[in-house]
Amino acid sequence: MNLQDIQHKIDKFTKEKAINSRVDIRIIDLASEVGELSKEVLKGTDYGNKKFEKTKEWKSELGDVLFSLICIANETNTDLEECLNSVLNKYEERFKNKGDLGSSK
Amino acid sequence: MNLQDIQHKIDKFTKEKAINSRVDIRIIDLASEVGELSKEVLKGTDYGNKKFEKTKEWKSELGDVLFSLICIANETNTDLEECLNSVLNKYEERFKNKGDLGSSK
Amino acid sequence: MNLQDIQHKIDKFTKEKAINSRVDIRIIDLASEVGELSKEVLKGTDYGNKKFEKTKEWKSELGDVLFSLICIANETNTDLEECLNSVLNKYEERFKNKGDLGSSK
Amino acid sequence: MNLQDIQHKIDKFTKEKAINSRVDIRIIDLASEVGELSKEVLKGTDYGNKKFEKTKEWKSELGDVLFSLICIANETNTDLEECLNSVLNKYEERFKNKGDLGSSK
Repeated sequence: MNLQDIQHKIDKFTKEKAINSRVDIRIIDLASEVGELSKEVLKGTDYGNKKFEKTKEWKSELGDVLFSLICIANETNTDLEECLNSVLNKYEERFKNKGDLGSSK
Repeated sequence: MNLQDIQHKIDKFTKEKAINSRVDIRIIDLASEVGELSKEVLKGTDYGNKKFEKTKEWKSELGDVLFSLICIANETNTDLEECLNSVLNKYEERFKNKGDLGSSK
Repeated sequence: MNLQDIQHKIDKFTKEKAINSRVDIRIIDLASEVGELSKEVLKGTDYGNKKFEKTKEWKSELGDVLFSLICIANETNTDLEECLNSVLNKYEERFKNKGDLGSSK
Repeated sequence: MNLQDIQHKIDKFTKEKAINSRVDIRIIDLASEVGELSKEVLKGTDYGNKKFEKTKEWKSELGDVLFSLICIANETNTDLEECLNSVLNKYEERFKNKGDLGSSK
């Protein structure tokens, strides 16, 4: 599914269910969800003692983080695909500069 | 762009640039990026003293969080659209149950 | 109790129980505990709809965050009181500079 | 210095400087500071490629997290030493129970 369509779908969903919130509340929710995903990483690596294996809750927790992030984007009328493109451009720029430094030019 | 295509694009990108990492490193990166987005919320609300206005860095910081999250999904071979659907189903289920409770049945 | 004594007490405790970990594991644990404290803030403010009231779990969650932070300090042989003093000095410096700017000097 | 005295000192400090905030703002600040500390862990381990070495900013970032946490405790009239003791009791309880399970009693 198209990322913009996903944003619209979730916007409609949260408004219908009246679970949309201000961005300063949503960002606290994001920290909470990232905390739960972090816990799954600890469990999935047995606290750093083995290679990560997906836990039973992995998909659900990853989904919660993405859902929370999309709500923040929606609440602030931000297009996530544009955001991603600006990140990719930033990295391209950095690598190009490093490349220049490394080359004999 | 399709969310699966975005995941593949970023997978290719991080492998080409050799910036892919283990999930236990990526999750620390996610906390770091969420921290930066949190800072923008503080700035954008003047530390809770006004309604949020997007900061100059808002799109870029939101993109960094999404990028970091997609890397975690890629590193663990997880399809984000499936994750989202499981979240939406979870919410639907909760609301259905609440609805039952609230109805006269 | 003296903060240094608290650090020693917890160092002894975690070593006796063999629950000490590398700092890159401990920082994931800190994100997890901060996530749980964030959840209590959401509950205690009814998701931003009322003035915060302490939840039943408040003290315990606050303690978990502090415990996790002290473990990070111990694992890296860092004296937390010194850390705090450097923060207070940083703030004093900032306010002094703002004061200078604001004064007629 | 005594942990309670530290809480009082910082309470006085933030009130004098008028940098105290509501707990729902402070928790966003905590996520931001934990994000910065996370970044130092990434730098100090070269993104998971070497054993952690303290970075130049380590003490200062650790201090910022503790400062933010103490502000949350102060804002909610919570005694951090009591919080820590309840955590230690919780762990003692868990280990006692595990001990019982493991023993032949």
